[in-house]
Amino acid sequence: MADEVNILLTCVGRRVSLLEAFRKALADLGLQGRVYGADHSRLAAAFQRADGGFLVPAATEGEPYVEALEAICRSQRIALLVPLLDWELETLAAGRERFERAGTRALISSPRVVRICRDKLQTFTFLKTHGFDTPEVLSYENALAGPFPLFMKPRYGSSAKDVHRIPDRDALQFNQRAAAVHKIPDRDALQFNQRAAAEETVIQEFVDGQEHTVDVYAGLDGVPRVAVPRRRLKVRDGEVSKAVTVRHPEIIRRSMQLVEALEECVGVVTLQCFLAADGRVRFIEINPRFGGGVPLAMRAGTNFPRWLIEEHLGRRPDIDPDAWQDGLVMLRYDDAVFCTAEDVDLTSDDGEPGR
Amino acid sequence: MADEVNILLTCVGRRVSLLEAFRKALADLGLQGRVYGADHSRLAAAFQRADGGFLVPAATEGEPYVEALEAICRSQRIALLVPLLDWELETLAAGRERFERAGTRALISSPRVVRICRDKLQTFTFLKTHGFDTPEVLSYENALAGPFPLFMKPRYGSSAKDVHRIPDRDALQFNQRAAAVHKIPDRDALQFNQRAAAEETVIQEFVDGQEHTVDVYAGLDGVPRVAVPRRRLKVRDGEVSKAVTVRHPEIIRRSMQLVEALEECVGVVTLQCFLAADGRVRFIEINPRFGGGVPLAMRAGTNFPRWLIEEHLGRRPDIDPDAWQDGLVMLRYDDAVFCTAEDVDLTSDDGEPGR
Repeated sequence: MADEVNILLTCVGRRVSLLEAFRKALADLGLQGRVYGADHSRLAAAFQRADGGFLVPAATEGEPYVEALEAICRSQRIALLVPLLDWELETLAAGRERFERAGTRALISSPRVVRICRDKLQTFTFLKTHGFDTPEVLSYENALAGPFPLFMKPRYGSSAKDVHRIPDRDALQFNQRAAAVHKIPDRDALQFNQRAAAEETVIQEFVDGQEHTVDVYAGLDGVPRVAVPRRRLKVRDGEVSKAVTVRHPEIIRRSMQLVEALEECVGVVTLQCFLAADGRVRFIEINPRFGGGVPLAMRAGTNFPRWLIEEHLGRRPDIDPDAWQDGLVMLRYDDAVFCTAEDVDLTSDDGEPGR
Repeated sequence: MADEVNILLTCVGRRVSLLEAFRKALADLGLQGRVYGADHSRLAAAFQRADGGFLVPAATEGEPYVEALEAICRSQRIALLVPLLDWELETLAAGRERFERAGTRALISSPRVVRICRDKLQTFTFLKTHGFDTPEVLSYENALAGPFPLFMKPRYGSSAKDVHRIPDRDALQFNQRAAAVHKIPDRDALQFNQRAAAEETVIQEFVDGQEHTVDVYAGLDGVPRVAVPRRRLKVRDGEVSKAVTVRHPEIIRRSMQLVEALEECVGVVTLQCFLAADGRVRFIEINPRFGGGVPLAMRAGTNFPRWLIEEHLGRRPDIDPDAWQDGLVMLRYDDAVFCTAEDVDLTSDDGEPGR
């Protein structure tokens, strides 16, 4: 009987392309195995498209979430667990050994790496310490002196949500106040909220340039093997909508160094950087997971799912770092999965609207 | 030789599903014909997926836009022109005869209908005059007196862009001012901008309830034949992301009456309404074009492209108003078209980023 490799994608949401890439990789390798999806809502498109969908608590709930995944891993004999959302990375990184005991390999970087990546301040410190170019981070007090514009973003944000360009001092003060908008009963609460807002917010030097995302394959040993930069052409609601692969030697070289410096990466790491007009490559973000736009790199020729499955089985994938198509353009559109109201149970509370 | 029916979808953007539905309808009817797409950018996914993509000026440019389309209609022997974007409807409705002379049937409602639909104030007046339930529109002065919350939206808006819920008097004043934010050199300009902002904005009674979209087939004679309500479950960046068909007799009845009252509709009209807790069906918008979520109604069984082609050929389509699946759920995700940087000409100025 052929080897069986069951795979579980968590927080699977709309990641249908990635799910199908894993399914194709199993087939191409002649392996048995099912590709499952877990989500807190049956209304996730990839939940319905998976070989089986599992309803779990929200990733932000911590322990109940990990317990639910662990139970699925045991009952379905999951070989590979692939987390896809920023909000679940810390919890799952901390629980890697639990999954190992359940016979499941969690494709997730070490807790140390995940902490560095989740916290924009730690990301900044890491990059500076290791000699990577990155926009300066400023305290609110120093930022007031300019020069403007500046960037302001949530310290623990995700998918470019709530990232603002701050044109001048007035806007900086307005946004700093706005970040602290809550019902404030008294003076103490006011001061607390101002401090909290300041700590939750990162103010950063404004960078002009072309925004690039880089998919780096780190495999199971953390050694970067391939880096595919893709330039963003258009973003829709925080997710890349149009992009093009770009064989830019300096972006590739620095991206490989960055993942090497992190030391304990697993799987695919997605970097964000600006390519400035003067050629500087300035990193702004590290996401230790499959990024939303990874279907482009895979279509260009980097078969990440296949390589990961091969490594998992103790084989050595055949990886040529340059064997991907330069100048490949991805133009996204809405496709759909159809099912019935009973399939998604619209009468229950697991639907999107109620959450 | 079989009949040849060439079709041109304009402002084709990401409407790949609709494009493929037209292609399938031609094949099912055993007809020859190509389905073309026009857009101001080669980076439109459906532009690349079409049997041929035509680069045209932006729809907002008026005459040069119509001229470009007319030239394509003549050179490609286009039988049906299908406009897809709100911003082009007025221009194209006014030019229907020009397309007729070019041998092309423009699937577009009369200029009168388009004007009523494009202007939220005219929509309101039309609905009231014809006895349809719709949220009251208030002048800024009357709105100040409440009750709150209220809705505020651009008078000539599209896809729910810049629609705000206004919780209280302060927010109303703030938004009214914000709507008028421009560099104001003097007192005259200030007063002018305040007036202009007021005229460009509609303040409307807040409606609570479930938002429904209704696809109504009006065919070539404007007589409504089928109405498929679909309840919105989730919206992403102004476009429906998850929805379910709902056979709601009152929504269907009122929607058919509405399109009948408009008298001069052509093709498919997409209505927006709220279903209030007390059962009232309150219309808020009329879009005389294929709405973005129409693939759900078509998948449920309403073969709009086929019916339109049949009518165009002088046949009578076989339409059963109830022959569509109730409770069908659509869950959207990102699929992609891939092409090369040369295909889209990233060095020219027709790409999205520069516009």
